[in-house]
Amino acid sequence: MFDFSLCVILDQDWIGGKIDQSLIADIVQGGATWLQYRNKNGSDAEFVRNAEIIVEIAHRLHVPVLINDRTDIALASGADGVHVGQQDLPVRFVRTLMGPDKLIGLSVSRLEELKEIDQVNYIGIGALFETRSKPDAELSGLELVQQVRSRTELPLVGIGGITSANAANVIDAGADGVAVISSVLGAENRKYAAKEVLEAVKLSKRRNTHERL
Amino acid sequence: MFDFSLCVILDQDWIGGKIDQSLIADIVQGGATWLQYRNKNGSDAEFVRNAEIIVEIAHRLHVPVLINDRTDIALASGADGVHVGQQDLPVRFVRTLMGPDKLIGLSVSRLEELKEIDQVNYIGIGALFETRSKPDAELSGLELVQQVRSRTELPLVGIGGITSANAANVIDAGADGVAVISSVLGAENRKYAAKEVLEAVKLSKRRNTHERL
Repeated sequence: MFDFSLCVILDQDWIGGKIDQSLIADIVQGGATWLQYRNKNGSDAEFVRNAEIIVEIAHRLHVPVLINDRTDIALASGADGVHVGQQDLPVRFVRTLMGPDKLIGLSVSRLEELKEIDQVNYIGIGALFETRSKPDAELSGLELVQQVRSRTELPLVGIGGITSANAANVIDAGADGVAVISSVLGAENRKYAAKEVLEAVKLSKRRNTHERL
Repeated sequence: MFDFSLCVILDQDWIGGKIDQSLIADIVQGGATWLQYRNKNGSDAEFVRNAEIIVEIAHRLHVPVLINDRTDIALASGADGVHVGQQDLPVRFVRTLMGPDKLIGLSVSRLEELKEIDQVNYIGIGALFETRSKPDAELSGLELVQQVRSRTELPLVGIGGITSANAANVIDAGADGVAVISSVLGAENRKYAAKEVLEAVKLSKRRNTHERL
């Protein structure tokens, strides 16, 4: 069973230069249950080179990795799946290329974008809050999490400005996990930062389970 | 047998907006023996949408289409292959993803880039001359065509600033064909422009064959 609780997105602009094995180890030991690798500005040659390295390190640590946006890079690097946005390769193509077993995530920032979801494995929702890593993002707010929750059984992952201070609210709104960049990669102690976010998520999940019982 | 004589590169920035079926028909009737579709600035959703349309039109006209840069778009759109540059997904990955039967072309602009070519079907060489469609391109000149010709039996395709006035020189230097953008797409009569370039290529090929006999 895939644990969506905490995804740390390894954005090339944040992790810079050479892939640092100890950075990934810190994040995973801190509590990231899965990773995404994003490279929006590099060449495809750099993208796949780094993706292969990250996949190898992560798999040694028994943590799955999804590639942001690019199905070809996901296939070439041996990643566990791909996370696509509304302007990327449409999901029907992604599923055909990736095969039935790989994970596919789809970003949704407005309720109208919740379509073509029968072939995806989870939905990413956001940007929820203001964030340093995407300062111009349009904010969807927690209402969108609640609205999507009422319309699908798929796992939901909140993204955008999520920290240990607001992660519980995202779970309370109906999400199964959160994805973070700056609140972990921008922290002085990344391991501790990941741990704090994961604890907030887990605590909220436990509380919600108890309330339902 | 694939006829490399004349490739017209349908660059999205040159063909603009909606794909115009009559534009493609004109180019093919003029003499394009194959096409490439390039989209460097649009979204992937737009890229694959237009690629599908171009592949459908071209196949109806019995002309093959390769996709520039992107293996996933080539696969998703049912194109006949992909043309990659030195900074794109490396050829070993491209071949694995595309399978044994699709065409793979590789751009070479310096002799040192002539490596990893055992899995490609042809080499693109350039930019040969100054061109409107890539004004900042570093020029390799016809010497590079001659040098690559002496090192491989693979089909060679010259690119960059090629017109009906210099196409014969490219063939004389050892190329099997030429790829053009501006000299056809920027012409008032695109059908006639394609015809002029193809005639120059064919004339030079016939002359070279006679000289060898």
